[in-house]
Amino acid sequence: MAKLVYKGKTKDVYALEDGNYLLEFKDDVTGEDGVFDPGANSVGLTIEGVGKAGLKLTKQFFEVLRDKGIPTHYIDADIQNATMKVKPATVFGQGLEVICRYRAVGSFLRRYGDYVKEGEPLDAFVEVTLKDDQRNDPVISSDALEMLGILSKDEYKRLKELTIAISGIIKSELEKKSIELYDIKLEFGRVQPDNQIVLIDEISGGNMRAYKDGKYIEPLTLEKLVTG
Amino acid sequence: MAKLVYKGKTKDVYALEDGNYLLEFKDDVTGEDGVFDPGANSVGLTIEGVGKAGLKLTKQFFEVLRDKGIPTHYIDADIQNATMKVKPATVFGQGLEVICRYRAVGSFLRRYGDYVKEGEPLDAFVEVTLKDDQRNDPVISSDALEMLGILSKDEYKRLKELTIAISGIIKSELEKKSIELYDIKLEFGRVQPDNQIVLIDEISGGNMRAYKDGKYIEPLTLEKLVTG
Repeated sequence: MAKLVYKGKTKDVYALEDGNYLLEFKDDVTGEDGVFDPGANSVGLTIEGVGKAGLKLTKQFFEVLRDKGIPTHYIDADIQNATMKVKPATVFGQGLEVICRYRAVGSFLRRYGDYVKEGEPLDAFVEVTLKDDQRNDPVISSDALEMLGILSKDEYKRLKELTIAISGIIKSELEKKSIELYDIKLEFGRVQPDNQIVLIDEISGGNMRAYKDGKYIEPLTLEKLVTG
Repeated sequence: MAKLVYKGKTKDVYALEDGNYLLEFKDDVTGEDGVFDPGANSVGLTIEGVGKAGLKLTKQFFEVLRDKGIPTHYIDADIQNATMKVKPATVFGQGLEVICRYRAVGSFLRRYGDYVKEGEPLDAFVEVTLKDDQRNDPVISSDALEMLGILSKDEYKRLKELTIAISGIIKSELEKKSIELYDIKLEFGRVQPDNQIVLIDEISGGNMRAYKDGKYIEPLTLEKLVTG
């Protein structure tokens, strides 16, 4: 029997008897005042079917990544029940988000708007933020990650490499449908027995900004365009 | 004749006929709601004599640094008129602040308080922020500084080395008076003819947090304790 171990903003987590975990994708998405924003920290609205749509996209992307030899926590997915079976992984510190940016939008633009124009192309720029809702997910340098005991310099290097590789694959997948990836937010963890760094969580409309013909694509639309 | 070229929050800048500049130290200090805060972006209050006190301290520190072979923009100081003569320097981008931290306080604690306790010792931790009042001086990584064309990786390395060396010297100077340096904010620029990176601006109570017997020392008191 699966046992609920964590209730998240957009997913619940169940422990399985075989030692693996089940992620249940919910219909809640992050945003503010009823407007979807993948960078927001609170659940802003519920959209029916968004959980299954996110899972379908996640399944498709994780299977492409598996085929390309990228290590992930993914085992398999059950679209009907909106669940994904994954290997157990431990996160870095209280959890990190690793962002890869191809265009200057969102928090990057809010921080560095003095030096960059909205939508300006960026060369697969990687940055890390702490998962800390209370402190608005502050950006953190590799020096600080090392000093605070969250990530060694070698682990940071590996995370950055993996992020650029994974984001590049997703970007190419989207390009097949004439969709442009502006930025994407990834999560990583360590899996046993050898503490290998793998991609965890999901890859769906909820953690990226994708545009078509210069217009932002909502998560549900993105799922239809990519999996359809 | 000196010509006013810039009115700053705590200093005015005059161009001299010989190509150098004169910094006039004012009695305004940064803070909020009448409370001094070296990390704040607005002028919070005026304290009579704080300009001259800041200059006395700056003169003393810059002369110590000169004796130790640290490159700075400093030429000489006139305490009576609260002015300092400096070499012309250009800043990086719209200006950077380079912070060296020995204890977790201020914005570092506000950002990373999930991983560090207030006042916890830090090992000369260096970070860079953009001077951008409108965006609350966002912290920026060496990767972002390079990508935005503000600082090359080699220049970042040099800035970090200089920051650790300078902050260590100031820390030792303060220790002679049983004062502990918690953090310090430095500014750098390039000087001609060879684009050498040098320390610019000032070093006074206004850009550091200094403590004695566990209590924060106000800028004016710091000046008396150190130069007296």
